[in-house]
Amino acid sequence: MSGPMTLGILGGGQLGRMTTLAAARLGIPVRLLSSDADGPADPFADATVADWTADTVLATFADGCDVVTVESEWAPADRLAALRPDLPIRPAPDALVLVRHKGRQRAAFDAAGLPQPPFAAPATLADARAAREALGGVVVAKQFEGSYDGYGNATCHSDADVDAAWDRLAGPDGLLLEAFVPFEAEAAVTVARRPGGETVVYPVVRSEHRDHRLHAAVVPAGVAPAVEAEARRVALAAVEAAGVVGVATVELFLTAVGGVDERPSVLVNEIAPRPHNTAHLTIEAHATSQFENHVRAVLDLPLGSPALRVPAAAMVNVLGTRNGPATPDLAGALSVAGASVHLYGKRDVRERRKMGHVTATGATADDARDVAERAADAIRWT
Amino acid sequence: MSGPMTLGILGGGQLGRMTTLAAARLGIPVRLLSSDADGPADPFADATVADWTADTVLATFADGCDVVTVESEWAPADRLAALRPDLPIRPAPDALVLVRHKGRQRAAFDAAGLPQPPFAAPATLADARAAREALGGVVVAKQFEGSYDGYGNATCHSDADVDAAWDRLAGPDGLLLEAFVPFEAEAAVTVARRPGGETVVYPVVRSEHRDHRLHAAVVPAGVAPAVEAEARRVALAAVEAAGVVGVATVELFLTAVGGVDERPSVLVNEIAPRPHNTAHLTIEAHATSQFENHVRAVLDLPLGSPALRVPAAAMVNVLGTRNGPATPDLAGALSVAGASVHLYGKRDVRERRKMGHVTATGATADDARDVAERAADAIRWT
Repeated sequence: MSGPMTLGILGGGQLGRMTTLAAARLGIPVRLLSSDADGPADPFADATVADWTADTVLATFADGCDVVTVESEWAPADRLAALRPDLPIRPAPDALVLVRHKGRQRAAFDAAGLPQPPFAAPATLADARAAREALGGVVVAKQFEGSYDGYGNATCHSDADVDAAWDRLAGPDGLLLEAFVPFEAEAAVTVARRPGGETVVYPVVRSEHRDHRLHAAVVPAGVAPAVEAEARRVALAAVEAAGVVGVATVELFLTAVGGVDERPSVLVNEIAPRPHNTAHLTIEAHATSQFENHVRAVLDLPLGSPALRVPAAAMVNVLGTRNGPATPDLAGALSVAGASVHLYGKRDVRERRKMGHVTATGATADDARDVAERAADAIRWT
Repeated sequence: MSGPMTLGILGGGQLGRMTTLAAARLGIPVRLLSSDADGPADPFADATVADWTADTVLATFADGCDVVTVESEWAPADRLAALRPDLPIRPAPDALVLVRHKGRQRAAFDAAGLPQPPFAAPATLADARAAREALGGVVVAKQFEGSYDGYGNATCHSDADVDAAWDRLAGPDGLLLEAFVPFEAEAAVTVARRPGGETVVYPVVRSEHRDHRLHAAVVPAGVAPAVEAEARRVALAAVEAAGVVGVATVELFLTAVGGVDERPSVLVNEIAPRPHNTAHLTIEAHATSQFENHVRAVLDLPLGSPALRVPAAAMVNVLGTRNGPATPDLAGALSVAGASVHLYGKRDVRERRKMGHVTATGATADDARDVAERAADAIRWT
């Protein structure tokens, strides 16, 4: 080798930022290409903001990279692959294209025999109405592409609901309907996978959403050992079924936290083929962070231990509470002993925009959660 | 405030690099000015390499900064202060100038009543010969300015040794002679101090040198509780005596690890008014890293907890083993489970040059040390 491998990242948001910080620690150079100058890439020397739908932009970016990864499944990995078939892109564009489409994701998990909510992918409104009945009467309708954090979703109890959802959410190939599954908790499992198939699986994280957006994550998840094991098994199988290389997080519904039910205790919700908000706490809490293992995996380097270094940890998101340019006042948050504050350097605050997060470690998940909540709550925008 | 405070750092080596990474996590912008393009500042957008003895260079750099700190006591903080008396420079140039001179450092610690080896600061060769006898016959001669890692030091057993040391090491105002003190162990304590005097003190680290250069550091130090307390007390008093703001590390000789001796158990060796190699393990092992607390202290933000997150940790340095441009092969080191590898991105390898370090955490200091040693030893330069 004539120098360290250079990692290209399509994306300049907080996931690219934290991945770049992890690579820097290892002495690995990173090039970033972003389509939006919103701030998280500002600290880095080799970050470009340009229209990444332009082939010349992609080709120029790729020239300096030994391997390219993406910050999101929506980055133009497929376009780059067409331009530069010789360049390793990880995860592979095929896997990203699969994951982008919630119907094809569900079909792939089904083919792999994974437990998931009963679903249908009707291509016509008539089929959608019939599917709601067949799925038990209450379904969640999801746009095939582009739905996230509750956007592009609708709960349907009637034909009228299905009609309205169809008008709003159906694409040319229809939409996804999932049986409404009562669950006791939501959880997430992060997996890192090398090109040759070597994997490591992180401990299960309990996640808590507010208004359809992740609010907090804690580890350990506080579930029965059999549920912990089943969640890890299912997550690993889902990552393998989707063919993702790098880090991926599988979001799960836990239908029986105690594991004493006859129903399956774990159902797959969806997969994110990239570092994920539920695993930000791995920076402080685990032997190897998700960002470092993402770098290792896509560069085909040995993976690091996913074990906890500490008994427990919690992460709480910091969302914007106003609109417009604003400066964080950190004094209150930094006064909370044991809180690790992360801000993403976004230039504009928007209400509910993810501006940062706080992690705390502790003897118990409750202790850590309390510290992280207090610090996150103390950040002010002035 | 119209935007986040920008922190200026005079220095672009590994300490500036790791401080910048810590600031980035907090969303704090950093400007770096370095006199030497050796690589560690490469990842960062706002890093300039220029002749920092030139006033125009310093003034241009300072224009974008709200507060300036230094990577080393040798950075031109005093020159910058003369140019920009309105700009906060932390630590203050007075403190840096004091620390640069080992004779004045010893005098300041003496005036504060701190335990340290008996010493003299002879201004003539005749006084130096007399001082050796008065100090017990065996002394360590040290250049007043510029000695480090064993460079600029000489052990003297005779007048002839003193004569040779004088020729080699004496400056216009003489040199420092310290009584040779047999010690059981070396240790270091890091302190963070805000402009108003608020401080936090990290747990004692046991340090181990090879060929006068730090090889490893472990925490806890494995000393008697009374020695731990005395080391923290002495270190805090030394930082206050030197008037340092920011993070500083006090290197100590432990003459009685078990604390059962009648001699003082702790003697001050010297102070480094900046982040220090013995505290690199705070990144993984402590609630707040030394780098983050340095950022907080010099920006006058609330300090973070210095408590350990884990039972024990160890750090082992990665030194160059050849000369010339070379690429690290990380595969072996990354295969050691639980090792956190840090490389500084230096472009040229030199024998014994600090190229990086490895930290491990564990149930005991010995466990962690074993992991860190194996990983550090496995890094290859190709």
